[in-house]
Amino acid sequence: MYLPKTARLAIYVQDEFGKGSSKSAEGVLRYAPNPIACCIDSRTAGKSISAVVGIDSPAPIVASIEEALTHKPDALLLGTAWSGGKLPTAWREDIIKAVKGRLHVVNGLHDFLSDDEEIAALAREHGVKLFDVRRPPDNLPVGNGRVLKTDALVVLTVGSDCSVGKMTTTLEIQKSATKKGVKSEFVATGQTGIMIAGRGIAIDRVIGDFMAGATEQMVLEASKEAELVLVEGQGSISHPGFSGVTLALLHGSAPQALILCHRPARKCLKSTEFPVAELPRLIQSYESVASYLRPARVIAIALNTQDLDQEEALRAVEETTKATGLPATDPVRFGADVLFDTIRPLLKKDQLTATRE
Amino acid sequence: MYLPKTARLAIYVQDEFGKGSSKSAEGVLRYAPNPIACCIDSRTAGKSISAVVGIDSPAPIVASIEEALTHKPDALLLGTAWSGGKLPTAWREDIIKAVKGRLHVVNGLHDFLSDDEEIAALAREHGVKLFDVRRPPDNLPVGNGRVLKTDALVVLTVGSDCSVGKMTTTLEIQKSATKKGVKSEFVATGQTGIMIAGRGIAIDRVIGDFMAGATEQMVLEASKEAELVLVEGQGSISHPGFSGVTLALLHGSAPQALILCHRPARKCLKSTEFPVAELPRLIQSYESVASYLRPARVIAIALNTQDLDQEEALRAVEETTKATGLPATDPVRFGADVLFDTIRPLLKKDQLTATRE
Repeated sequence: MYLPKTARLAIYVQDEFGKGSSKSAEGVLRYAPNPIACCIDSRTAGKSISAVVGIDSPAPIVASIEEALTHKPDALLLGTAWSGGKLPTAWREDIIKAVKGRLHVVNGLHDFLSDDEEIAALAREHGVKLFDVRRPPDNLPVGNGRVLKTDALVVLTVGSDCSVGKMTTTLEIQKSATKKGVKSEFVATGQTGIMIAGRGIAIDRVIGDFMAGATEQMVLEASKEAELVLVEGQGSISHPGFSGVTLALLHGSAPQALILCHRPARKCLKSTEFPVAELPRLIQSYESVASYLRPARVIAIALNTQDLDQEEALRAVEETTKATGLPATDPVRFGADVLFDTIRPLLKKDQLTATRE
Repeated sequence: MYLPKTARLAIYVQDEFGKGSSKSAEGVLRYAPNPIACCIDSRTAGKSISAVVGIDSPAPIVASIEEALTHKPDALLLGTAWSGGKLPTAWREDIIKAVKGRLHVVNGLHDFLSDDEEIAALAREHGVKLFDVRRPPDNLPVGNGRVLKTDALVVLTVGSDCSVGKMTTTLEIQKSATKKGVKSEFVATGQTGIMIAGRGIAIDRVIGDFMAGATEQMVLEASKEAELVLVEGQGSISHPGFSGVTLALLHGSAPQALILCHRPARKCLKSTEFPVAELPRLIQSYESVASYLRPARVIAIALNTQDLDQEEALRAVEETTKATGLPATDPVRFGADVLFDTIRPLLKKDQLTATRE
């Protein structure tokens, strides 16, 4: 169980807001249904959220947990990663203050707060919950292609790298689908996606043998609720650290179509010196490996042009289409209709006639 | 730390010996340096090991833990998997008897004996150790291609499926290398390999984000000790459940050469209805995806012809070479020299002249 959608969030981004390490916070600000009470970052306190991360939100940025509590949040959401192993002392103290202030805590990190005996005891004492969203459920199955037996249209976002906009693209496509009257389910596979959807499994935290099975299980579940299942991808088939997670998602979701996400300004794979591969080569790899389970085509390219100005972004879209022969757009900058329009013809006719449009 | 190589093993294969589910037991019987005190299986007790699994060993098969203890073992090694979730009651009782008989216990399953409070307490009380060989170490890194900075020649076994002989092939190649005076290191990546090598990490038990990093760490370690690093592969890039583990191993080890393992009699991927892919297609996939880190060629095919008679096996070798243009052999049936001879020219000249041959 996750927080109710009405729970008011205080987003903890101490020292990190707007630095590029506050990806979770930004995803939640942009897409989560929960009302935002405030963000907490003494470095940017007093500024507007829009000025710091370019997202319109009336919530204030405050300097401390004490100040945050005056804005009546229900939960503290840790909106950034720390570097290195252990929970920093300053974070720990702030989390303890929040728990004592009767806030639930939402944590997307690899380390779990409910394994911290002191914090867990305090949470029990104050009647609040610790949501370690990356903790996988027990008894996950091994993947064996069960998804192929459903009727749903499964679309997966894949990437030329990590952090290029796979979650964002998936959510923007869902917005476009909803606008056009097509019901879809978003399958969250990473911590931020789970904070937004209120459910999901962080596949990168699952034990190797069960990653594909966990994905399968979520897609099967989602396919009961909608004929269009939009699966959030992770990593890249070309990434030295994360390609295993990427492939488990590809085979676990057995999609019929792929949307390839790419950040044109990124020259090297995140945290490495390996160049980002050319898109046609990536398309060939994804399609070739997907086909062991089910033929899948890359049907469009989603660009993340946040590092580019408007003119450069338009040029990137044009060049991408030229290089790949596929429709391309930046779904945040220009909307995701171009992407959804490539998915729509793949929906079955009876699904289409059942839509409101 | 693992058992010393001189520890005498009682191999527990109750109800499963020779059924195809005793893969760990057979690997240990064939390749582990430890002396074998006995195998335990009341179903086949009294027969010879050779009659049951075709491996020459003078050790007896006995019917119970009590009887096993009379053969003076130092450790009980669980040599088979059980189906389903919990440790079967009969196993538990036998493990407890073994611990009370002052035997260490070696366990390769996903569930850990040291997490079982009663067994853990008994082990402490009787001064014996519980070796859960699949438990990954803490603080594993994320993979980032560090292997490319070493001088070692890295060779990885890959497969057309699970359980087609990747570990066996790797160990047979090592035997051939040793015979020809080339020092090599075997990198164990699965439970049986770890029981044989006395070290290693079961990559399928590692959390997704750290699988490639764990592989990298082992290859770097091994490359300090030998110029030829032979990495045991897992799963198959085409397997719906395990392909993520396979790709993490491929990118984590960043091999310069691949040996493709295949079992000609296998028509469908293990535990699925998916056909085993054609070898040329698999070769193309492995080489294409490997190349994001480092170009790697499949240089030979290792066949597992245990289901075939001699004539069929010879024909399978011939047909495989015809289909792929590559040297092929069954390393158990015909020896691994054909495979090692494809690796040898890739070793650096100064390494070759330093060898004893």
